[in-house]
Amino acid sequence: MNSKRETPSVGRLAQPLVDALIHEARELRIAVSTGPLGCRLIDAGASAMGSIEVGRRLTEICMGGLGRVSIVASPTTPRWPFAIQVGALDPVVACLGSQYAGWSLAGGEEDGGWFALGSGPARATYAKESLYQDIAYSDDAETGVLVLETGAPPPESIVRMVSEATGCRPGALTFIYAPTQSLAGATQVVGRVLEVAMHKVHALHFPMDRILDGLGVAPLSPPSPDFMTAMGRTNDAIIYGGRVHLYVSGPADDARDLAERLPSRSSRDFGSPFAEVFARFNGDFYAIDSMLFSPAEVVVTAVESGKSFRAGAIDTSLVDASFDG
Amino acid sequence: MNSKRETPSVGRLAQPLVDALIHEARELRIAVSTGPLGCRLIDAGASAMGSIEVGRRLTEICMGGLGRVSIVASPTTPRWPFAIQVGALDPVVACLGSQYAGWSLAGGEEDGGWFALGSGPARATYAKESLYQDIAYSDDAETGVLVLETGAPPPESIVRMVSEATGCRPGALTFIYAPTQSLAGATQVVGRVLEVAMHKVHALHFPMDRILDGLGVAPLSPPSPDFMTAMGRTNDAIIYGGRVHLYVSGPADDARDLAERLPSRSSRDFGSPFAEVFARFNGDFYAIDSMLFSPAEVVVTAVESGKSFRAGAIDTSLVDASFDG
Amino acid sequence: MNSKRETPSVGRLAQPLVDALIHEARELRIAVSTGPLGCRLIDAGASAMGSIEVGRRLTEICMGGLGRVSIVASPTTPRWPFAIQVGALDPVVACLGSQYAGWSLAGGEEDGGWFALGSGPARATYAKESLYQDIAYSDDAETGVLVLETGAPPPESIVRMVSEATGCRPGALTFIYAPTQSLAGATQVVGRVLEVAMHKVHALHFPMDRILDGLGVAPLSPPSPDFMTAMGRTNDAIIYGGRVHLYVSGPADDARDLAERLPSRSSRDFGSPFAEVFARFNGDFYAIDSMLFSPAEVVVTAVESGKSFRAGAIDTSLVDASFDG
Repeated sequence: MNSKRETPSVGRLAQPLVDALIHEARELRIAVSTGPLGCRLIDAGASAMGSIEVGRRLTEICMGGLGRVSIVASPTTPRWPFAIQVGALDPVVACLGSQYAGWSLAGGEEDGGWFALGSGPARATYAKESLYQDIAYSDDAETGVLVLETGAPPPESIVRMVSEATGCRPGALTFIYAPTQSLAGATQVVGRVLEVAMHKVHALHFPMDRILDGLGVAPLSPPSPDFMTAMGRTNDAIIYGGRVHLYVSGPADDARDLAERLPSRSSRDFGSPFAEVFARFNGDFYAIDSMLFSPAEVVVTAVESGKSFRAGAIDTSLVDASFDG
Repeated sequence: MNSKRETPSVGRLAQPLVDALIHEARELRIAVSTGPLGCRLIDAGASAMGSIEVGRRLTEICMGGLGRVSIVASPTTPRWPFAIQVGALDPVVACLGSQYAGWSLAGGEEDGGWFALGSGPARATYAKESLYQDIAYSDDAETGVLVLETGAPPPESIVRMVSEATGCRPGALTFIYAPTQSLAGATQVVGRVLEVAMHKVHALHFPMDRILDGLGVAPLSPPSPDFMTAMGRTNDAIIYGGRVHLYVSGPADDARDLAERLPSRSSRDFGSPFAEVFARFNGDFYAIDSMLFSPAEVVVTAVESGKSFRAGAIDTSLVDASFDG
Repeated sequence: MNSKRETPSVGRLAQPLVDALIHEARELRIAVSTGPLGCRLIDAGASAMGSIEVGRRLTEICMGGLGRVSIVASPTTPRWPFAIQVGALDPVVACLGSQYAGWSLAGGEEDGGWFALGSGPARATYAKESLYQDIAYSDDAETGVLVLETGAPPPESIVRMVSEATGCRPGALTFIYAPTQSLAGATQVVGRVLEVAMHKVHALHFPMDRILDGLGVAPLSPPSPDFMTAMGRTNDAIIYGGRVHLYVSGPADDARDLAERLPSRSSRDFGSPFAEVFARFNGDFYAIDSMLFSPAEVVVTAVESGKSFRAGAIDTSLVDASFDG
């Protein structure tokens, strides 16, 4: 990750996946339209039905074409038979450089309070989040795509802002939106199991250039019409049902330390379904211990010593309490 | 599913999969030839060897290109390490509109009693089975494919009838045949795990437009040279080893009721390997309780309330008794 | 496998996979260069980073395009959450005709002792290993690829020799190399789980034309910087953690006999991590009982009788002892 030239362009790699989504819109039960300033809008779960498969594809798009995502039989949650499995060619670029929902997009007053967090390749073309300094990555793609965890398309002010921020023409931008309550929305959020781990790795100040490879899996959470419940379940799928294996360089002691600190149970707020934690803090997201956001169980292999370290454990009772709650 | 225009064409979506099968015939160990009236015949397991992979592909063809099918490590049957997993973009169209083996094809006297049940996209172009009224789907593809669970190719009378019924030229029709005793045949029948669930959902009069998404998995049954044994095992793979997760709209109570009635154990005839049940009724298929034909275990999620309901359970002893019997 | 015409060309089938690897070199973090005599070199894990995904692809290339390989959640090794699963369209050609690392390549004195075992399609174009008589297969592809389990590219003498032996121009040859200590190297070696079984089937003098189909799965072993440890772990992944299901023709008694003799536990040297066994014999590879090299657990289905036989068992303690050792 030393220079832009040596790294792949998440924007360019994701575009064929976006084009395929559009080409297969009818069978995928999604709605494609032209939005403000000629941008492309894809409703993947708001008025459109979408599906778990659409969510799987959104996950691959969010990862900038650097992810391999599949729906698998869940090995750890007998009451919830299916899971989403994620592999990344380069977890730092795929997960933090593209997939992380780090672009806070807020419309003006005239936009009726429209707000969404943007995930996906266009973040890297903007690349002004502080994270990008730490991962030494940015993209120069001429097309851009953002996946928005919301039920409403972006207003014109947002399309203009994203166009200006990325340098992509509005007509070269695609906004895909699906609320957490939808099949595609819930699926793509649980598909963040590896990204959530990467984000905590970053928060723990582990050197990002030491992350070499990674795999993750988490049970598909059942959608809920209630946003808080839906959001709680997608978090719990990862916090209490997610499993990640990271491969890192550097000393074994650092890997051991990372493994011990990485799982969700290292957090003060571990132990209740997320929606309860959220309510306990009166809905103040930032009052929740950020260390809670990570997979239940991790294995970290230090490839330079060949040592593996593990910590945490899947908690099927908490998964059940959340998904059945 | 309100009009033909809004739904995908299973015939058009399946055709590239059929073309790929033909293109890769040599490595797939299947035999392609020209049949009566210029139709295309594919022997996928009669004289040809075929394989489990061919069966996986036949399943995707049967589902009209709306299915994602993979061979996975079986999570529930330790003595039978591999399973077939099925997801559908739209379970109603994929499974009932295409995959269900609902077209009864019987040759005339001159055809020596040739008989087979037809599965796949051409059913939807014919669309005269009563089922099609209930699912409000039909197709207008100009090419047609049928998968036949039999060891003999269709005679000319059948090809002509299918051509007339579908409006597809004989030269635009492909008939793929593989007996239940073959690797491909057994695989594609176990690949009906989700379709069997959908068929029972329909028989239970649950409104079909409320089925939003679905996933299923069942252990691969070992083939047998004896038709009855082979057929019994493919049924048992689903009845005692199959697992399905359905996502439905509508009231939670309806979903609970569906979950309780859907698994095979709700049937009077549950509890013995299928071949024994069949023998008990002296081979009278229609004397068997039709409610037996469904997966062992189901989860039904009512997305409008966010509630999930489950019933039934994998019965590994009965799977073992059948597969090892 | 009666004549060359009826069988697929592993060289031709693998070439598009090689081309894709080259096309996606940047995102796969591999290094493509021109080597001696104009051949193509791909560093997939020596100086280049590579990844588990690269190893998955190398496995498909090794299998001559006749394999389907995926990274899956491991069903049997809870401490090692991910595994590699392998299916073959034709296990004899894919595994023995192509994947087996049977071509011993040793440079001259001027090459500083360069040595590697070659795996992949070009073996079949050479086809002088005695194995090829037994499987009645050879290839006539005009391009060739070999995967080398080593950290150094082949010297000119080797490139010339392979070109002469296969009849492929040097410019039509691709050499892919990755040491066992790398992510891609370790992954592709564990991806031999089915091939190792096939090799022992052959050593047991079971008729190769009776092998109809096969599937295998083994846990991904963590890489180690120490060659002996890395090599030991990849062997242990298969010997103590691998599972294979074979489908064979012929009498049930032969299948039973094969199942009983096939698993690793039938070997005199079963019971210790491979690196210990190797040390016990003072590093004399050929002193180790060759019967040790096979999966821990096998199921053999005799399709002409419908009977299945199983023997052996995954030994998670030995897997843990090896991977954590």
